[in-house]
Amino acid sequence: MRIGILGTGIVGQTLAEALDTGGHEVVVGTRDPAATLAKTEPDMYGRPAFRVWQEAHPDVGLGAFSEAAAHGEFLINATNGAASLDALRAAGEENLAGKVLLDTANPLDFSKGMPPSLFVCNTDSLAERIQAEFPGARVVKSLNTMTASVMVDPRGLGDGDHTVFVSGNDAEARGSVKELLRELGWTDILDLGDVSTARGAEMVLPIWVSIMGALGSPRSNIKIVR
Amino acid sequence: MRIGILGTGIVGQTLAEALDTGGHEVVVGTRDPAATLAKTEPDMYGRPAFRVWQEAHPDVGLGAFSEAAAHGEFLINATNGAASLDALRAAGEENLAGKVLLDTANPLDFSKGMPPSLFVCNTDSLAERIQAEFPGARVVKSLNTMTASVMVDPRGLGDGDHTVFVSGNDAEARGSVKELLRELGWTDILDLGDVSTARGAEMVLPIWVSIMGALGSPRSNIKIVR
Repeated sequence: MRIGILGTGIVGQTLAEALDTGGHEVVVGTRDPAATLAKTEPDMYGRPAFRVWQEAHPDVGLGAFSEAAAHGEFLINATNGAASLDALRAAGEENLAGKVLLDTANPLDFSKGMPPSLFVCNTDSLAERIQAEFPGARVVKSLNTMTASVMVDPRGLGDGDHTVFVSGNDAEARGSVKELLRELGWTDILDLGDVSTARGAEMVLPIWVSIMGALGSPRSNIKIVR
Repeated sequence: MRIGILGTGIVGQTLAEALDTGGHEVVVGTRDPAATLAKTEPDMYGRPAFRVWQEAHPDVGLGAFSEAAAHGEFLINATNGAASLDALRAAGEENLAGKVLLDTANPLDFSKGMPPSLFVCNTDSLAERIQAEFPGARVVKSLNTMTASVMVDPRGLGDGDHTVFVSGNDAEARGSVKELLRELGWTDILDLGDVSTARGAEMVLPIWVSIMGALGSPRSNIKIVR
């Protein structure tokens, strides 16, 4: 499948690698590809520059947001939440229309220091804002409740016995996302229903941050025991 | 131990029964004991009137909020979140001072219909509001992330292999709450730290409501797989 991933950060890189390995044709989108490739220093987390990553993953394309979105039959928003709407505007409504848009972003607000709060929550969500601004896109919220390495390798944590949530208005689009999740190794996929249920999934982030602090590791995930 | 429980609803009844059975001396508090006992009809969920419940649990006392709070060495807020601060004011600051106050309430706002939103979240929490208004109480948030029957019988769900969170400023108070949780059968008790981490625990409620809808049952709980 042709997949366009918006965002060159850790989530974009991790998903691109896994989906490329899985046989998909992946193009990663960024605001300014030349600027992204010009960076040579490690980022603030000590991760190598995108250029270094790309040299190790030569089959993954890099383009502008609009090029990645035009390439993909299936799109993934892996930008940071504060930049997501701008990135999608740059991708272009015409390149989103009719396509599944898997939204993995969280509306984290770091402007008030740590721990982050959310810049939208409770009566609205980032996923709903995206769906409202791009009614032609088939927005499905998922994978936003765990760290990138767990997203693509659920079996690597607790033998894979934990849960991923899915929220979106279009049942067929939720089905496409579930299929991709199964490809990644997910077995406990909990369909919450329409996109308004993304509020709850995004509001998991504050406790996730506290749990990361308590455990000293981002490698945990929720299992819904029932 | 002498335990005062504020609230005669399903959470108060369920905790009172379990702690009474566990050998504690329990008094349940309500705004107006005579009014509570005057009710004979089942409530909106079809649960029997408190009077019927009390006849089956003759060792559990009933009193005004202030009487239950004066009785308890250890206090539990089991009122609904919207009524919690008023109930605690009625209990009286002098009856809270120096005591552990286990806060199980959630700031659910049903005024805008279903599903409920939260009337405080993100940059504040009900637990923090309680702690701020009653600085002498040793507030510990816990047990607010699952249904009452699971609170007191974790082993009855998934062999007990799921998680309860604890948040509060006073480490010794958190320790007292953990001890009570172990008495109830909890084995996976995750200490998140100070009371501000109750934000995350309370913000779990929206996804909990969605999960209840998706599963058709309130009997689920989070396990933090790590």
